[in-house]
Amino acid sequence: MRYPFADRVKMFKSSAVRELLSIIQQGDVISFAGGLPFEDYFPIGEVEKAYQKVFASGKSSLQYGLTEGYLPLRSWLSDSMKTKGIESKADNILLTTGSQQAIDLFTRVMISPGDVILTENPTYLAAIQVFQSFEAQIVPVDGDKDGMDPEDLEQKMKKLRPKFVYVVPTFSNPEGKVWSNERREHLLKLAYKYNVLIFEDDPYGEIQFKQDQTYTPLAAMDEGRTHVMYTSTFSKTVVPALRTGWVTGPYQVIRMMAQAKQCADLHSSSLDQQALYYLVEDFDLKGHIEMLRVEYYQRMTIMQDYLKSIPTSSISWVEPQGGMFLWVTLDEQVDTTQLLMEAVKNGVAFVPGAPFYVGNPQLNTLRLNFTHSTPEKIKLGMDRLALVLSKLQSGTESPIIV
Amino acid sequence: MRYPFADRVKMFKSSAVRELLSIIQQGDVISFAGGLPFEDYFPIGEVEKAYQKVFASGKSSLQYGLTEGYLPLRSWLSDSMKTKGIESKADNILLTTGSQQAIDLFTRVMISPGDVILTENPTYLAAIQVFQSFEAQIVPVDGDKDGMDPEDLEQKMKKLRPKFVYVVPTFSNPEGKVWSNERREHLLKLAYKYNVLIFEDDPYGEIQFKQDQTYTPLAAMDEGRTHVMYTSTFSKTVVPALRTGWVTGPYQVIRMMAQAKQCADLHSSSLDQQALYYLVEDFDLKGHIEMLRVEYYQRMTIMQDYLKSIPTSSISWVEPQGGMFLWVTLDEQVDTTQLLMEAVKNGVAFVPGAPFYVGNPQLNTLRLNFTHSTPEKIKLGMDRLALVLSKLQSGTESPIIV
Repeated sequence: MRYPFADRVKMFKSSAVRELLSIIQQGDVISFAGGLPFEDYFPIGEVEKAYQKVFASGKSSLQYGLTEGYLPLRSWLSDSMKTKGIESKADNILLTTGSQQAIDLFTRVMISPGDVILTENPTYLAAIQVFQSFEAQIVPVDGDKDGMDPEDLEQKMKKLRPKFVYVVPTFSNPEGKVWSNERREHLLKLAYKYNVLIFEDDPYGEIQFKQDQTYTPLAAMDEGRTHVMYTSTFSKTVVPALRTGWVTGPYQVIRMMAQAKQCADLHSSSLDQQALYYLVEDFDLKGHIEMLRVEYYQRMTIMQDYLKSIPTSSISWVEPQGGMFLWVTLDEQVDTTQLLMEAVKNGVAFVPGAPFYVGNPQLNTLRLNFTHSTPEKIKLGMDRLALVLSKLQSGTESPIIV
Repeated sequence: MRYPFADRVKMFKSSAVRELLSIIQQGDVISFAGGLPFEDYFPIGEVEKAYQKVFASGKSSLQYGLTEGYLPLRSWLSDSMKTKGIESKADNILLTTGSQQAIDLFTRVMISPGDVILTENPTYLAAIQVFQSFEAQIVPVDGDKDGMDPEDLEQKMKKLRPKFVYVVPTFSNPEGKVWSNERREHLLKLAYKYNVLIFEDDPYGEIQFKQDQTYTPLAAMDEGRTHVMYTSTFSKTVVPALRTGWVTGPYQVIRMMAQAKQCADLHSSSLDQQALYYLVEDFDLKGHIEMLRVEYYQRMTIMQDYLKSIPTSSISWVEPQGGMFLWVTLDEQVDTTQLLMEAVKNGVAFVPGAPFYVGNPQLNTLRLNFTHSTPEKIKLGMDRLALVLSKLQSGTESPIIV
């Protein structure tokens, strides 16, 4: 039978890279591809204790819960976000299945086919997929290491009247970039001027390597809490398997998203939400994040030192100040999708940059994750990658040059 | 700010009934409204043990999982469904956040605005909401106690070329109805003839009161596994808080739904899925379901005996053979939405039938849940409801007559 799919599935892209990466997970390949946290740091004992508390609280903990999510956890989040300057009542918070669901539900309530979304370029791959799946017109805004280009942004806001601007301003995926406070203020000013919502995706904000700078979330600058939706997650700082993220913003939008969530899944796992509540109540989350910052910084440094050691001028990157990724640009004749095959043969993997782009991709880019592997594995994997990259430099690997 | 929502949110309906019901949850009102299982029967000790096993399996249990869901649980489901005659490989199964998400993802990949879906009438409220949110044209098919009317069904299949037919053939929500095997076969024959997919929603199939009859799932009749999507859930038989459902069907459709799920939330809680796997491996689920059948049958009987005792001919219902609901029809001048307010004043609640209808609702219907309350509470609540209904009969409560 030929199945009569909806028009929107034409926008689903089967990713050759994803297929390749899923295959290599089985072999002896060191992967810098996935955006995974390091497993040894998962506070498994504390998570287990938290579940024990849920079960000790009685059988009603196993009943259906609220679409909006477990209230004590939302109240905790309301307090916790205050320390970042974000004012938000528990009623203005929706718990989601990871922050991915927050992106999806927001897009679902905002976007009709053809509506415009402004984004950075490159930007988070799975956000692009969501926007495409709702048939949005995704328009990239020019940018540099400090954020979106002010002129291009204003011109596009004015001319295209986007439904929203999607940004990952703090230690972005894939670039590991952080916006300057000036650019943040400027974006917000334009949002007020043109009455456009901002969707601030902040999964990595806590993983800041050095504390010499303060990056204010856009949501904290939005004093009336009228123009910024803010999403984050416990996946990077606690554990991913709990799949618990949250989103906060104007009540009217959160209400609409809750109605969409009722359609989507009634509610996320309330057992996980309850366990997280007991966990954050008892656990030294701040100290845990402090440890992650130190460890992940160390790993980033090891990886970066290898990149520095490769004797060529055709590799460039900006040192990330936080997050989980190193974004590398190679000689502009290189196609990293083809380079990946060569790398896998040599026992190392990364994600080619192309799928992170809206429109014409920069084919000579790649993303390296430094959080998932031990320092030893990073060294071994970077040895292998360095070999591939130096061969490339010597020009003996013709198939990878486009 | 006026938020520029997508066109599809115009289809979101804020439900006055839902608001009312959420308020009464706080008072001394006995509620037969929600479709909740009985908490005392939750196997909390076994669930806790299952989680202990997950944690004992190591830290990788807390890492990101597959979009399709935890493979050992899918394999277990593949075996388990065989006992119902449903052939399905693990690869053809997608784990979801409750079966609600299965309905949502399937609709998302099938429906463009204006596409036709055929349904029973009345049918599952939250399925209607999903279909509306994707701007489907929902067309009800005439039916009786045995299922959809064969002629009306064929006429509408032929004329309207629906994208799919949505059915809850076994102990439906809200009617508690079960389709005859003849009607099932007939629906499937038409699906082949007109090349239309069937979406079989089966959350209640296991809760069959007497074992004197066998109702074959449509998916088991679909030998080539080409035309029937089948979804079910652990929410009614184990516990709801784990939010784990599944859907199976043709690989091509399941693949497309997995791509949609990647957008929607990357994956559901893998901790819950792993715990469920350990639970079903060890736990006497069959015996547990057997106990539920006996207990829920007893409660249904108590509730039904009260209905029988009300001295009037203007109350009618069909005795359910399974499931969680009694569907009651009153004198046709009664509007149960208004009756609900009267009932709540008397300390008892139900769901008015109207929101379960597509198109013109039958306002004189209501749904009673008999699984969530103890026999004692059922007696007390039905005493209160009987009082309201007899007053109604005597005609002294004019505001509730439309």
